[in-house]
Amino acid sequence: MIAITILGNNSAIPAFGRNPTSQYLQTTESSFLIDCGEGTQIQLSKYKLKPSKISHILISHLHGDHYFGLIGLLTSMSLLNRKQDLHLYGPSALKDIIDLQLKVADTTLNYTLHFHSLKEEGVIAQTKKIEISCFKVQHRIECWGFLFKEIKNPRSIDIELAKSFEIPASYFEQLQKGEDYHTKKGTIISNEAVTIAANTPKTYAYCADTIFDISLIEKLKGVDLLYHESTYLKDLEERAAARYHSTTHQAATIAKMAGVKKLMIGHFSSKYESIDPFLNEAKEVFNETVLAIEGTCYKI
Amino acid sequence: MIAITILGNNSAIPAFGRNPTSQYLQTTESSFLIDCGEGTQIQLSKYKLKPSKISHILISHLHGDHYFGLIGLLTSMSLLNRKQDLHLYGPSALKDIIDLQLKVADTTLNYTLHFHSLKEEGVIAQTKKIEISCFKVQHRIECWGFLFKEIKNPRSIDIELAKSFEIPASYFEQLQKGEDYHTKKGTIISNEAVTIAANTPKTYAYCADTIFDISLIEKLKGVDLLYHESTYLKDLEERAAARYHSTTHQAATIAKMAGVKKLMIGHFSSKYESIDPFLNEAKEVFNETVLAIEGTCYKI
Repeated sequence: MIAITILGNNSAIPAFGRNPTSQYLQTTESSFLIDCGEGTQIQLSKYKLKPSKISHILISHLHGDHYFGLIGLLTSMSLLNRKQDLHLYGPSALKDIIDLQLKVADTTLNYTLHFHSLKEEGVIAQTKKIEISCFKVQHRIECWGFLFKEIKNPRSIDIELAKSFEIPASYFEQLQKGEDYHTKKGTIISNEAVTIAANTPKTYAYCADTIFDISLIEKLKGVDLLYHESTYLKDLEERAAARYHSTTHQAATIAKMAGVKKLMIGHFSSKYESIDPFLNEAKEVFNETVLAIEGTCYKI
Repeated sequence: MIAITILGNNSAIPAFGRNPTSQYLQTTESSFLIDCGEGTQIQLSKYKLKPSKISHILISHLHGDHYFGLIGLLTSMSLLNRKQDLHLYGPSALKDIIDLQLKVADTTLNYTLHFHSLKEEGVIAQTKKIEISCFKVQHRIECWGFLFKEIKNPRSIDIELAKSFEIPASYFEQLQKGEDYHTKKGTIISNEAVTIAANTPKTYAYCADTIFDISLIEKLKGVDLLYHESTYLKDLEERAAARYHSTTHQAATIAKMAGVKKLMIGHFSSKYESIDPFLNEAKEVFNETVLAIEGTCYKI
């Protein structure tokens, strides 16, 4: 299970009650924060999501609407007496900014902050439940997307069935490893006959600020949920390109061509009071679209 | 007229709906922002106060709850196409932080930001209506208080009265300069007889985070409104001292000994859900006390 709660869905300037980008991703094991615009710690509190549960924070790029809330969150975690390690991923200059702000405040964090500079595409973190990789997206400055893949669970033993085939409990460890069972009479009980397949691992891709870029399609193929920015409506394609952003139709085209199961769009420009037209336009191209709505939790 | 709107009254961590420190000070001429905790730009918008009216921003010190909202406000002003100059005052390292954050975002501001490093006590800015000076306060790191003094207006001419004394309009400029009028018959019409005194200039002192420090009294003598932090209730005097903060009784003692007209207390610790006890305790020492309440405008 992957559940994503939207903490902010707006671009650049907070407007019409919409906050800058941040998403809180939960698995049954721990939580992850993706981007951290100004006010994220207040949004976490508003939606009763515990900062203490966050084990990893991923920052896509160093435009303020994606990270100005980070230093406040990091220092608040310390003031709240966090002890467990925190892993932070982002462009290398992020460490300089944090170090400088802690230094001038004569502050040290209570907990260990492991900073991981994003340098090349590939797996950056793995827990028991999830694997995270990063990939490059094309924006005005260095910018990264993130792909979350559940770890494939092994098949589980159907104990009643295994017993009915007279497979001894002492063999269960080997069954778990995928081996077949050979009876004394020479019959082979295939592993699949007495084990149950785990749920298919789910995938979530987060495409931070990006220009319309078809080279992304290969990286996003078949994901269960794709978050793709859609800063503008379709009539502003030129402006979107000039600012390295995307439109509704462009985000939906990527989703369609990558054959994703569902698309979520966000990062709406502050120029729009209503975001309803975003949904209508995206659905013209890709019907399985939802809007990133603050406070809403999307489960995969 | 000086009017102060409270945008945040909490210390350290946002809690119980209270935001970190920021105050918006208005004169009839322009507006000033004092400190800028995270979320200040959202608070400005909530209380319908225009960032475009702000001509000067003053940052007392570099603990996050007093400036983490600054970079967001500065960049939003630029995105909102601000053109007029902005004057920013604070400890010198503040400039390094802003420069670094603009550099990594590959961003330049649309307007000219004049950074003034606070180095010694005295007048730091003067407009037509107000003079601002800074003074040192004792905190864990370099920290400044600010004193706002209205510029004394000249006396205004009582035109009807001046005419009744047959003072020609051509002499009004000299009257305005304070000169008496000599009639042809040799009588002296004193300046005070035909001019009206302006209102007494008002004063506002902002004591940012500070330990209980009686050396402040001399600097705050007789101000109309004193903002003094009161992070803790009176029973936590030891904790207050250890953290270079003050209690209710200490803030009220400073107000009483400095003979100020009114005291406003704020910077309440996140440990307190209700702030009502702060008012009761401060009034035990100095009756003319008010709480800094978010969204409330205090006029002098």
